[in-house]
Amino acid sequence: MAKRIGKYTIEMEKKPAIRGYAAVCGKKEAQGPLGKAFDKTFEDTTLGEASWEKAESKLQSKAVNLAIEKSGVAQGKIDFIFAGDLLNQCISSTFGLKSLNIPFLGQYGACSTMAQTLALSAIMVDSGAANNCIAVTSSHFCSAERQFRFPLEYGGQRTPTAQWTVTGSGAVVVGENAQSPQISKVTVGRIVDLGVKDANNMGAAMAPAAAATLKDFLDDTGTVPGDYDLILTGDLGEVGSKLLKELLTREGIELKDNHKDCGLMIYDQNDQDVHAGGSGCGCSAVVLCSDILNKMKNHELNNVLFMATGALMSPTSTQQGETIPAVAHLVNITSGTK
Amino acid sequence: MAKRIGKYTIEMEKKPAIRGYAAVCGKKEAQGPLGKAFDKTFEDTTLGEASWEKAESKLQSKAVNLAIEKSGVAQGKIDFIFAGDLLNQCISSTFGLKSLNIPFLGQYGACSTMAQTLALSAIMVDSGAANNCIAVTSSHFCSAERQFRFPLEYGGQRTPTAQWTVTGSGAVVVGENAQSPQISKVTVGRIVDLGVKDANNMGAAMAPAAAATLKDFLDDTGTVPGDYDLILTGDLGEVGSKLLKELLTREGIELKDNHKDCGLMIYDQNDQDVHAGGSGCGCSAVVLCSDILNKMKNHELNNVLFMATGALMSPTSTQQGETIPAVAHLVNITSGTK
Repeated sequence: MAKRIGKYTIEMEKKPAIRGYAAVCGKKEAQGPLGKAFDKTFEDTTLGEASWEKAESKLQSKAVNLAIEKSGVAQGKIDFIFAGDLLNQCISSTFGLKSLNIPFLGQYGACSTMAQTLALSAIMVDSGAANNCIAVTSSHFCSAERQFRFPLEYGGQRTPTAQWTVTGSGAVVVGENAQSPQISKVTVGRIVDLGVKDANNMGAAMAPAAAATLKDFLDDTGTVPGDYDLILTGDLGEVGSKLLKELLTREGIELKDNHKDCGLMIYDQNDQDVHAGGSGCGCSAVVLCSDILNKMKNHELNNVLFMATGALMSPTSTQQGETIPAVAHLVNITSGTK
Repeated sequence: MAKRIGKYTIEMEKKPAIRGYAAVCGKKEAQGPLGKAFDKTFEDTTLGEASWEKAESKLQSKAVNLAIEKSGVAQGKIDFIFAGDLLNQCISSTFGLKSLNIPFLGQYGACSTMAQTLALSAIMVDSGAANNCIAVTSSHFCSAERQFRFPLEYGGQRTPTAQWTVTGSGAVVVGENAQSPQISKVTVGRIVDLGVKDANNMGAAMAPAAAATLKDFLDDTGTVPGDYDLILTGDLGEVGSKLLKELLTREGIELKDNHKDCGLMIYDQNDQDVHAGGSGCGCSAVVLCSDILNKMKNHELNNVLFMATGALMSPTSTQQGETIPAVAHLVNITSGTK
């Protein structure tokens, strides 16, 4: 059963395995550097649906069904689904997954959702409360722009610090199994709010949360960044990644070349005009569920810290002049010897 | 550690205890039949804040702080907080709880949130992943009306099936301890959608989910409704409660006088003009965290099924002509011998 180590970290006893995973994306993501690693991409970002919200729901159901198929686990053997997204009342998840008939626990962690759902899935499996769980999230550029910023038709100009919401969904089947990769530790983040108010600069708002959670994990485990093959942040983008390094340096922690950010991996920063990088719940989800987990299966990577960050504001709180609280959750994924 | 019984139910081994709880409410709730049972009520529903959203955040922070105080558990000994609410991106929870510095896991289960957060808190404690957790949720009539229906100033007329969103927050500290009441079993619901589209008739949309989860639990445990002192639904109201009984009768399950609905307990149905009853995440939360848990502590009630239901639509999905998916989660709370 799960064991607490240090103040904030939980160590899994049974090392719940990642039994299957899948990433599905839109056209822009297909054209990016990871395009070939995705399980499925759609040329038409409506996915043939009548609304962007329905298109996003379809991304989730496709990702979940593919992950289940690839895991070889029968759908009836999945005990819980942990799902969430950015849309008001998480409708991409509820509408996308309602037909699955699997006990449903809706999550809200903004862009930290992939780490949050993975962490809870792992704990449920480790505790014996579940044999298999699904962790899933999504985002869609068009549904997010309409809800958080401007209608697409308005053609608003984006600021240099703005990030581009990924159209995609990633899903993971976590279960008790000897196979690897496995989830070995989890650190759940505290909300951090250093007073950033610019909703077009999420990286700056989220970097302090990432720094706090990484420090918690390193303190709890007595390890240093160099002990890991990869420290993968969710969607800090250019601005947030730079700030993360600065904040950690002040704490005496040096991030070297083993730090990567999903927001800077998914698009071509020179050619795809995404400004400060990719973002959205789907960003870290699809990068993890393609390139990263593929490399862990091949043992190109064996010890990864996956840390997704979420900005917990809403358009209402922003309009009311509030700051942007943020959170980061960390999942340590390991891959045994070949 | 947690043990699965039947297909959908989890039995706690350590029987996590409810170590402290608190309910705070607004003026209308103070004037209702349970008014005297709440820990704190506010004459001014703004709670002195500049917006309804901030007022709702304050309800949550008040409820959490009171529950911690009553539990006698030091704040630093609380490992996780499971919190959620109805507002877009769950801002009542994030803004209300950000200063607590406790690892935060945002939940979205609409009005099922109190049962969802309690269930996850119990599993975390039972698994050893946490020593103490907080489960909390809230709603506010004014923030909900503005977001889901009409601005208050518009003075729209409510339909007879409409329910009145409770202004209130309930919080529970769940921890490993020999005291009672304790959480003994949990059933996580599947999403049920029978095609109801009327967002002013949530009771009808949610009743099928309640029926499904209760049937799952009774099947898994081999028990009948008469085995429990009280079967407490969240906020089905008049319409939904009637439908729940009809749906269960078709399954050969008879609910008798031991069924109550929080939405029909919190207001005076004759004098307070709330139409079909109370609703909102706060409804079941404050009824549980006052009258019900008080009676469990006194052993007036010893074996209770607390089942909160959530309608998982959003204004966007409703405007797009979608149906209302719903979910119900069940928590079996027991109180040992005196």
